[in-house]
Amino acid sequence: MTAIITLLTDFGQRDSYVAELKGVLLSAAPDARIVDITHEIAQGNIFAAQYVLGRTWQRFPAGTVHLAVVDPTVGTRRRIIAAANHGHCFVAPDNGLLTPVLTGASVVDVPVPSDASPTFQGRDVMAPVAALLAQGSSLERVGRVISNPIRTPVPTPRVDPQGLVGCVVYVDRFGTLVTNLRELADAEAGATPRVGKIEKESSVAGSELPGTAAVVVAGRAIPLRKTFADVAPGELVAFVGSGGTIEIAVRDGSAAEHLGVKEGGEVRLRA
Amino acid sequence: MTAIITLLTDFGQRDSYVAELKGVLLSAAPDARIVDITHEIAQGNIFAAQYVLGRTWQRFPAGTVHLAVVDPTVGTRRRIIAAANHGHCFVAPDNGLLTPVLTGASVVDVPVPSDASPTFQGRDVMAPVAALLAQGSSLERVGRVISNPIRTPVPTPRVDPQGLVGCVVYVDRFGTLVTNLRELADAEAGATPRVGKIEKESSVAGSELPGTAAVVVAGRAIPLRKTFADVAPGELVAFVGSGGTIEIAVRDGSAAEHLGVKEGGEVRLRA
Amino acid sequence: MTAIITLLTDFGQRDSYVAELKGVLLSAAPDARIVDITHEIAQGNIFAAQYVLGRTWQRFPAGTVHLAVVDPTVGTRRRIIAAANHGHCFVAPDNGLLTPVLTGASVVDVPVPSDASPTFQGRDVMAPVAALLAQGSSLERVGRVISNPIRTPVPTPRVDPQGLVGCVVYVDRFGTLVTNLRELADAEAGATPRVGKIEKESSVAGSELPGTAAVVVAGRAIPLRKTFADVAPGELVAFVGSGGTIEIAVRDGSAAEHLGVKEGGEVRLRA
Repeated sequence: MTAIITLLTDFGQRDSYVAELKGVLLSAAPDARIVDITHEIAQGNIFAAQYVLGRTWQRFPAGTVHLAVVDPTVGTRRRIIAAANHGHCFVAPDNGLLTPVLTGASVVDVPVPSDASPTFQGRDVMAPVAALLAQGSSLERVGRVISNPIRTPVPTPRVDPQGLVGCVVYVDRFGTLVTNLRELADAEAGATPRVGKIEKESSVAGSELPGTAAVVVAGRAIPLRKTFADVAPGELVAFVGSGGTIEIAVRDGSAAEHLGVKEGGEVRLRA
Repeated sequence: MTAIITLLTDFGQRDSYVAELKGVLLSAAPDARIVDITHEIAQGNIFAAQYVLGRTWQRFPAGTVHLAVVDPTVGTRRRIIAAANHGHCFVAPDNGLLTPVLTGASVVDVPVPSDASPTFQGRDVMAPVAALLAQGSSLERVGRVISNPIRTPVPTPRVDPQGLVGCVVYVDRFGTLVTNLRELADAEAGATPRVGKIEKESSVAGSELPGTAAVVVAGRAIPLRKTFADVAPGELVAFVGSGGTIEIAVRDGSAAEHLGVKEGGEVRLRA
Repeated sequence: MTAIITLLTDFGQRDSYVAELKGVLLSAAPDARIVDITHEIAQGNIFAAQYVLGRTWQRFPAGTVHLAVVDPTVGTRRRIIAAANHGHCFVAPDNGLLTPVLTGASVVDVPVPSDASPTFQGRDVMAPVAALLAQGSSLERVGRVISNPIRTPVPTPRVDPQGLVGCVVYVDRFGTLVTNLRELADAEAGATPRVGKIEKESSVAGSELPGTAAVVVAGRAIPLRKTFADVAPGELVAFVGSGGTIEIAVRDGSAAEHLGVKEGGEVRLRA
């Protein structure tokens, strides 16, 4: 049975590019089932692509092939890689995009045929490899094993006397700020946050959160609650989000706009 | 054979949320075929979701499971429901979204597991239930029968001496105003409009429409025509739309912008 | 085995329209696999639809049915056509949209049933025909053979003493200007450009491009390079794009905005 192939790109949905990928995939692997992760990653934003991939891949069944094309240096000497880990396969440019799945992975360097388009190697190089992997090819058949893929890990929060200091790692389309901070356990233990790892979502009841805990961003102390409906419309709220880290939102609004904060912005968790 | 599962959300297509739903569905029901209705419902607009669902579900084959997640009070005590009607199944928060399919439906209250994310129960509660239903589970296996799901029906036009008085129930992406008014039969009979019900589309030839009939909105009398190409580009036109009710459009433009009218705006049908 | 059905429309993804098409297709052809080309063609832009279709269809396996609905004169006497060519089938309004696939095609005029909606014949006429073709119906069973479908071919560049004079045929979502100019072979041979034809992508190494060749648009001479990463961020670059014709881009920016050029704008290729 041919695997599911997921697609994650910054191509947008207006042009022919996504469909060209799908046509190539379905011509080479006629039984493949293709699932769009998103095609709306901001142009060239490898970091956002990495975050979305890190949250998504493990929701799919083992055997899934994930094709991720955010490739601002397409046509240069940057490598194209394929990786296997936890029973899933991944194909992407070697630019850090696969960071969330590289620990413990087997990785190969995929050759670029001389007749590939210098501006659309997602179609001419990566999609054919994804189709092969979806049909059961081994990683070694599509490239040469390498040990040094590029990694661009999410920054680790640091502990200071007032608590944890982290940052915004992703802003979603609602303007919600997703951070790299995990609940108070992190602050207490000085533990390494685990953004992008596979784990069970934490169950956080309102009562489990100490009354004094607060998230501080852009000079504002925001109380930790269970869900955004715990505050009035238009109000700021922090909660442990569905990815397992602390998020800051405005109910029925955009925290990013309200606070003027974007990816990389500092966020503190005060116990 | 596993059913088709349709998805209707306000998640947008930029983030990981839709793909997380799909991963959960395909992990639990590997043969399911997933069809996106839309993910571009305006954030928290239950009324728009209800309109789109009401127009769409009956186009799919019997046996289809429709998962609809527009859930502004996620994580609160609002219920999650599953319903069966006309051979289709539906899963959604109990906030009125399922109104178009509740008449005559069997409905159950779906329990929320204690480890579900308080902000993403589409993924942690509703998708697993949709997968079970797609694989043939009975409604009773996924929840406890209830008789009082929340209903937020589309307002009914009223009859006054000049004809029918209705309102805009939906504005589409072209800026076309969709009303709750059905042709002159309504005006003559004082009949209840039937937005969202299953029925054959009416065939409306230009010649069937009386020359004096007009739709009045924002102080403008707009003649009823057969299709928008019956007027010049930039001009206002009213016609019986593909959902069976009267619509007001600007050819190659936006009636919503042109008239400054939105959902809820009054529309009169003058015989 | 039921064919793949691709969809290309200007419906957007916010409303019920695309899902109504899919519901009709899956009700009539339950095993069909549906692939979205795009639903984000600008409203009524037949020329853009034609470009995207021309680039895309041949990437899919033989047997695929392509349903393309950009239909600004829906409900008028314009015909609906179905065509077969190169083992693929096509269904669309007869407004030029199918131009890229009409040479050598068999074409039929599809009758419009009297009960079809005058504003949504994609759903009520074209989708049912696409479903029939996907299940193996012959073209002749769905309409009457015609020999005069409307063609709106991409303009052919002309040769003048300085080289080739062409135009922008498409602007993609990155603001990249896609032209109808093919490399210097065109300039030298005065050959007819072949936009939209099936052919192998040309392999263009930087070294193959003469140092003096330049693309001139909006009074700016832009050097031909291999890929956009060959210039610094913010700079203009021309290259042979993944569709086989010359494109003008701004690295990490929009050439359309930067140059103030849109579809139809003149572009010269100076040898």
